[in-house]
Amino acid sequence: MKLNRHSSIPLYAQLREMIVERIDEGMYKEGEQIPSELQLCKELDLSRPTVRQAIADLVGDGVLEIRKGKGTFVAQEPERLEIPHFTALSFSFLNLNSYESIGLQDIKLIDPDPELDRLFRIAEKAGHPGYWLASWPIEDHGTILGYCRSYIPVQLFPELGQNLASGKRMVDIKSNKYAYLPQKGALSLACRPAKNQEARDLEIPLRSYVMALEGPLFARSGHVCEVLRIVLRPDLLKLELN
Amino acid sequence: MKLNRHSSIPLYAQLREMIVERIDEGMYKEGEQIPSELQLCKELDLSRPTVRQAIADLVGDGVLEIRKGKGTFVAQEPERLEIPHFTALSFSFLNLNSYESIGLQDIKLIDPDPELDRLFRIAEKAGHPGYWLASWPIEDHGTILGYCRSYIPVQLFPELGQNLASGKRMVDIKSNKYAYLPQKGALSLACRPAKNQEARDLEIPLRSYVMALEGPLFARSGHVCEVLRIVLRPDLLKLELN
Repeated sequence: MKLNRHSSIPLYAQLREMIVERIDEGMYKEGEQIPSELQLCKELDLSRPTVRQAIADLVGDGVLEIRKGKGTFVAQEPERLEIPHFTALSFSFLNLNSYESIGLQDIKLIDPDPELDRLFRIAEKAGHPGYWLASWPIEDHGTILGYCRSYIPVQLFPELGQNLASGKRMVDIKSNKYAYLPQKGALSLACRPAKNQEARDLEIPLRSYVMALEGPLFARSGHVCEVLRIVLRPDLLKLELN
Repeated sequence: MKLNRHSSIPLYAQLREMIVERIDEGMYKEGEQIPSELQLCKELDLSRPTVRQAIADLVGDGVLEIRKGKGTFVAQEPERLEIPHFTALSFSFLNLNSYESIGLQDIKLIDPDPELDRLFRIAEKAGHPGYWLASWPIEDHGTILGYCRSYIPVQLFPELGQNLASGKRMVDIKSNKYAYLPQKGALSLACRPAKNQEARDLEIPLRSYVMALEGPLFARSGHVCEVLRIVLRPDLLKLELN
């Protein structure tokens, strides 16, 4: 890309994109220093305010960062923790061997809900006793990387809440229930602004982008036995898909 | 949530979050009209400028939209096209039955590149003839939903470019090459701001968020036979993960 002095696009905006292009192309590398304002002025025959404006914009966008007394550096893309072999079952509650491992503190009973009923393929008019809702954070050294909500029909596990409260082991809760455990699933993955509650769960600014996974898990019979709603911090996590 | 008149958070900011909460909780529904400024003033005992500021902020954020002469409505989340049964192989070039189906116009030869060599697990010092780069948009009725780049070692398919240029069919190109076709893969999925070139490929504003998928595909032997770099528009697409 070359600067075009006859364009209607201001020079500082052209320079801004030129710097980004030089980063994308590897001429300026992540974590390394870029030339000083003065060097850029000379190289490209630009005025100081033009260069300063382009750099200020890119600092604001998080593309560049200024280190006091050192200069201007290409910001480093955050290292994201990769969740290996991610599948629809990776965050299933019913697939857990122990609920202590996720730090689950509470499970609560919630009323039937039209949107959940739809995901569970429960006909709207059919009365039923509602869902167990288990929710827990995905943490790494005290940082919240994601937040999981798992919904399980009370019809399938009538005493799940009481069982967990009394400390019954997961393996005992699941014995004789193998027909109701998830065998496969169909989560839809979208990247979208967080809802307020999600932003609070993840301790991120309101309406930041999240990776949102939602959908049903199926038992061997084909019935939906669990519904997951997961939000993940895209700046901290990535998923390995196979 | 209740408004707190003694808080250091300005009332318009509190009201803004209250409106978002009412949307999240379903009190104000997607696509439906919310109460007028005047009604909100009365209900919550707020001044007109406070209500106006909160609404203006949410219009700017895309949470609300004003329809002239009608009122203020909750914006609808875009309907996203779901790619069913997404796997690491979904966008493999070598797995295609026909390259006409994706509208591929060109394939080019590129030089060895340290980052690609690393993904292909080719030792840095080993000289090799480089890669074929096939790139194509994922389109739906003229809208670009995503953009794929596939890299294939010239060593494995020495005449791929010439074969495509001469109109050789994919099935013939692949005959006797089954040992080099992808059997599985490991794509990492991240959600991050677009690079300039990606934004141009997708025809979206610079540094918009994209879903980025990148990684190797493996032949039966375990060797990497193809590397994919895919960007998808998160406002238009979602992935079904199984």
